[in-house]
Amino acid sequence: MAAALETCIMQIRSAQEECRRSGVAKRPRWPMIILRSPKGWTGPREIDGHKQEGFWRSHQIPIPDVADNPPHLRILEDWMRSYRPEELFDQNGALVPELRELAPTGSRRMSANPHTNGGSLRKPLRLPDFREYAVPVSEPGKSEVQPTFVLGQFLRDVMRENMTNFRVFGPDETASNRLQEIYRASKKTWMAGFRPEDSDGGELSTDGRVMEMLSEHTLEGWAEGYVLTGRHAFFSSYEAFVHIIDSMFNQHAKWLEKCKTEVEWRVPVSSLNFLITSTVWRQDHNGFTHQDPGFLDVVTNKSALVTRIYLPPDANCLLSVADHCLRSVGYVNVIVADKMPHLQYLDMNRAISHCGKGIGIWDWASSDQGGEPDVIMASAGDIPTMEALAATAILREKFPDLKLRFVNVVDLFKLQPATEHPHGLADRDFDSLFTADKPVIFNFHGYPWLIHKLAYRRTNHANMHVRGYKEKGNINTPLELAIRNQVDRFNLSIDVIDRVPALQKSGAHVKDWLKDRIIEHLSYAHEHGVDRPEIQDWKWPY
Amino acid sequence: MAAALETCIMQIRSAQEECRRSGVAKRPRWPMIILRSPKGWTGPREIDGHKQEGFWRSHQIPIPDVADNPPHLRILEDWMRSYRPEELFDQNGALVPELRELAPTGSRRMSANPHTNGGSLRKPLRLPDFREYAVPVSEPGKSEVQPTFVLGQFLRDVMRENMTNFRVFGPDETASNRLQEIYRASKKTWMAGFRPEDSDGGELSTDGRVMEMLSEHTLEGWAEGYVLTGRHAFFSSYEAFVHIIDSMFNQHAKWLEKCKTEVEWRVPVSSLNFLITSTVWRQDHNGFTHQDPGFLDVVTNKSALVTRIYLPPDANCLLSVADHCLRSVGYVNVIVADKMPHLQYLDMNRAISHCGKGIGIWDWASSDQGGEPDVIMASAGDIPTMEALAATAILREKFPDLKLRFVNVVDLFKLQPATEHPHGLADRDFDSLFTADKPVIFNFHGYPWLIHKLAYRRTNHANMHVRGYKEKGNINTPLELAIRNQVDRFNLSIDVIDRVPALQKSGAHVKDWLKDRIIEHLSYAHEHGVDRPEIQDWKWPY
Repeated sequence: MAAALETCIMQIRSAQEECRRSGVAKRPRWPMIILRSPKGWTGPREIDGHKQEGFWRSHQIPIPDVADNPPHLRILEDWMRSYRPEELFDQNGALVPELRELAPTGSRRMSANPHTNGGSLRKPLRLPDFREYAVPVSEPGKSEVQPTFVLGQFLRDVMRENMTNFRVFGPDETASNRLQEIYRASKKTWMAGFRPEDSDGGELSTDGRVMEMLSEHTLEGWAEGYVLTGRHAFFSSYEAFVHIIDSMFNQHAKWLEKCKTEVEWRVPVSSLNFLITSTVWRQDHNGFTHQDPGFLDVVTNKSALVTRIYLPPDANCLLSVADHCLRSVGYVNVIVADKMPHLQYLDMNRAISHCGKGIGIWDWASSDQGGEPDVIMASAGDIPTMEALAATAILREKFPDLKLRFVNVVDLFKLQPATEHPHGLADRDFDSLFTADKPVIFNFHGYPWLIHKLAYRRTNHANMHVRGYKEKGNINTPLELAIRNQVDRFNLSIDVIDRVPALQKSGAHVKDWLKDRIIEHLSYAHEHGVDRPEIQDWKWPY
Repeated sequence: MAAALETCIMQIRSAQEECRRSGVAKRPRWPMIILRSPKGWTGPREIDGHKQEGFWRSHQIPIPDVADNPPHLRILEDWMRSYRPEELFDQNGALVPELRELAPTGSRRMSANPHTNGGSLRKPLRLPDFREYAVPVSEPGKSEVQPTFVLGQFLRDVMRENMTNFRVFGPDETASNRLQEIYRASKKTWMAGFRPEDSDGGELSTDGRVMEMLSEHTLEGWAEGYVLTGRHAFFSSYEAFVHIIDSMFNQHAKWLEKCKTEVEWRVPVSSLNFLITSTVWRQDHNGFTHQDPGFLDVVTNKSALVTRIYLPPDANCLLSVADHCLRSVGYVNVIVADKMPHLQYLDMNRAISHCGKGIGIWDWASSDQGGEPDVIMASAGDIPTMEALAATAILREKFPDLKLRFVNVVDLFKLQPATEHPHGLADRDFDSLFTADKPVIFNFHGYPWLIHKLAYRRTNHANMHVRGYKEKGNINTPLELAIRNQVDRFNLSIDVIDRVPALQKSGAHVKDWLKDRIIEHLSYAHEHGVDRPEIQDWKWPY
């Protein structure tokens, strides 16, 4: 065994030296040790005539009935005595000194090796000031950018500042997810052959720090390994396909929780940062197979000690959230943000304040200043926020006396009680935002029942009406998809009319008008394959 | 291409003939055609000096800007004209007759081939009468059996009656999940080498119909393919690891829904039947990594048209549910049932009636006959049901005047409103079972918030207090694990005392006594590594 290890290490060193000497990265044939040992090796060869050693019967407890079966107890004793314990332990049961000396000391111990306790090697990222990447927003809801493209500019410079301990992972999607600015700092890792055309847009390099492979499993394994050895990882995925690694996420979250609560000597590692993008609401050409926002449902089943979920409504909020996540330690951070052009609402100062609170009133969209609201319009996620604002604009125009409060949620766990999650809003804060008795129309990015799962203990829960994705999808235009799932401006307006007592009767004409609009827009989408220009170009009108 | 296909088919036929002639199944080297075609083949070779054909730029829309860019529109036109449409279509735009004749007709058309529309080949299973496998239950809660072992006896004979169109799939777990009786009808498929010891307990055979491989992905793919080609599949998995195929389940459920709602010519296929076993509550030696009941959360996000979930509380109920699922068409059926010895409650007639209703009062456990209950004790799942019954026994002993109603849920979707799921209970039925205002203590197999997700619209939802798994686990004894997650008899009794107004003050002494019991049992478990005999041997005392 020692000789085999020595041979392999020499071969690895020689390959490394050759690479460093020549300056050319190639794919050496890495040595590999295959140790094939019989299952249950050194255990009893057979028991009662049935093969045991080197067979499936050695799985788990090889002799399960020693308490009641004296002949089997004798087999167990013979087996244990075959290790000659009298030579290994002294009269007090302690290991004899010669053997104790064989054990390594200090950082040569397996658990104390810094590469297995990566937090001890971890250095915080050198982060450029995310404010410098801010999108100018002079008025809310007037201009559009691609939020993940803006994030890519920030990540590009994070990469430049941390070229030895930061990597970006994506299943063949870094550019598709609009993070391609990163390639200016570092390319995709590629160790195989190069062709002339690869130099024109291939973005490949033997020392690239962007890890791409159309295998979410492999990438998640790489990302976890990278983080566990003390480095930093940023993982982007199409939303629907991050379910592929549900089980890997689950095990990592369980591991993180145990480290925090029961394994004192473990030094915390960097958070595992997921960007969930190319989301359910903008799958105009991919359709139903690409619509699944349910990863959040899986994440919310895991311990509140290690899970964080953010739905920044625009690019400046996304920058603020990303900066926060890249600094954090010991969590799984999930950021949900789409890649398509979206309206921008908050300048950088407002974004920092909004994300710092995690949930807040948007005063500029509300009409309940100085009074009790008639209704709360709430939203979480970029597209649901736009539709909720568009509904707010309709309602403010049609019902100038309606007192509407607009609440936006960035930090999803604010909705859980403070007793359940460290980010949970205190009940008095929740009640003052959402009132104790007024209707709340909540437009959510994911499956609507997730909001109920988080908020069912809240005072005003019975008045919360949540809209979200409910598996109604196809190759739809954006508005058509929103309408089918009732997260669109027209259905949200109808929801408000239905829930606000003063509008239930007087709002009938408007409700009728809204239903006309739904039919009109669906017809247009069917005929033209795109939404009407006033939908595509909609801006916040105030 | 035709020659390559012909060669391969001849090789396959020859291998089949050799096998049939000799009667010996071997692993022939199956032919494989590798067709390597350039991406975007026959498209423009390059555009504006950038390589296009055979390169990543041919992905999705190769020339995205033809609407605004006349030179690019010309490239598109040249490309389209390169197919010589004037030779392919007549003046009306119809395909010319010579080409139209090339298309196959009838069942040679790809979509009409019965192997791709497997429902047309599907024959219902020949099912033995599941009642004949019934466990005798003369009194509820007195005797124990291993429910999945009983199911295995039924499945063994299902296999015997359907040796050409039924297969069982399990990731190396058929015996571990106590379904080993199946091996009496058919062994594990194994085409590689055989050793002498394999004949003693190996359960291997070249024509075995049990598919085992420690790869949930591969098995799920096999099972889906088997069902889609008109056959029947039964898939068993350790509960925690079925998350590995979350994404595959999601896509199959989406496909099923579209077939039902939009693809009229598709003939329905057999349901995909999952048995989720080796569950969270009996992972005494595997611990935290093996505790994850969250697959149900994923399933409940998919369309109500195709999803069914059953939690039979004992073996007779499991038989009844399994029979129902094996007969069904077009669903994903999820059955949750543990493999360890569990108390039996219902004889076969009662089990059939209980499972037929899907939810029902257990009269023999209740004490509210002829009156309004003070509290409803509800349960779903085998182990939570036992703990809820044990709590009921404590409460009936300590508070003989307490009117307690015991409700058990088999069909989880009964909890959803009838407007949301075809199995959903009508509100008037739900309200008469759970009352409009009395406290409900609900002991659930999975994550507790799933019950809120399903039942949040119910009249009495604000009074529903759900217990379930909340990620508090380790290498625990069964009772210790139950206590850590508060699904145990003592904590449930405390919940009742806390929620029933008449007991809140008078119950203080009993509550104190219950807390003593918790500490006492935890101490015993820590010291002995097992639960006290009165817990291990507990029986329903009435």
